[in-house]
Amino acid sequence: MDEMKLKAIGVIRRDDAGSSARDELVRVEVADEHAEGLHRIEEAEKITVIFWLDRLPPERRRAMRCHPHGDESLPERGVFALRAPMRPNPIGVTVVDLVRRDGNTLYVKGLDALDGSPLIDIKSSGPIPGTGRD
Amino acid sequence: MDEMKLKAIGVIRRDDAGSSARDELVRVEVADEHAEGLHRIEEAEKITVIFWLDRLPPERRRAMRCHPHGDESLPERGVFALRAPMRPNPIGVTVVDLVRRDGNTLYVKGLDALDGSPLIDIKSSGPIPGTGRD
Repeated sequence: MDEMKLKAIGVIRRDDAGSSARDELVRVEVADEHAEGLHRIEEAEKITVIFWLDRLPPERRRAMRCHPHGDESLPERGVFALRAPMRPNPIGVTVVDLVRRDGNTLYVKGLDALDGSPLIDIKSSGPIPGTGRD
Repeated sequence: MDEMKLKAIGVIRRDDAGSSARDELVRVEVADEHAEGLHRIEEAEKITVIFWLDRLPPERRRAMRCHPHGDESLPERGVFALRAPMRPNPIGVTVVDLVRRDGNTLYVKGLDALDGSPLIDIKSSGPIPGTGRD
């Protein structure tokens, strides 16, 4: 099988660089060469944003269990039973509200990605307008 | 930045090898070395399965628009406004019903992956039991 290598198709930008809060308006900036892939995306209310967790140190990719939200009063769970960033393949997947599109930039709410995270993919979330199907 | 390389953590198995139908019971088989990451996953009803679209020919990764479900009566959309497999980074992301766990194998419904697809990640979908939060 081919190697499974990803390339960045854009970048996530947020003004509060240290935050991953979900109530902030966050910019999903798509590179010019991939902008055509956004055609008619403004008709969607929700989209799935896939990004690379580039701040995750390699040693944390080996963790197999942790406490939800770091709360030690809660029982440990496996990383596949959580959305925590530590996991063998550091990919983030979040369904967000698409607030508006301005050219190559999507303004979204609900994205828990850090400023500068490489953008990997965007998918429609929910039925495609005019089809009634995903 | 580090190269964005993925490693398979398991494989998707389905009996009807040519199908990607969503009503079939499909097996998500996690490799032994990552099995600890499944701890308490059986408490979840829905999980997100992330897999590699390994049957996508490289030339289809360059498509930027297509008709939804190949239906030419529908207007073309950008690949980021669809869930179609053609896209620059061939990653599939599907929320599925977790029917049961048997050791390292999860039996799921609703997974539109082909037999043999490399498994990349699994995440909880919806609130984590006991926390009321994702």
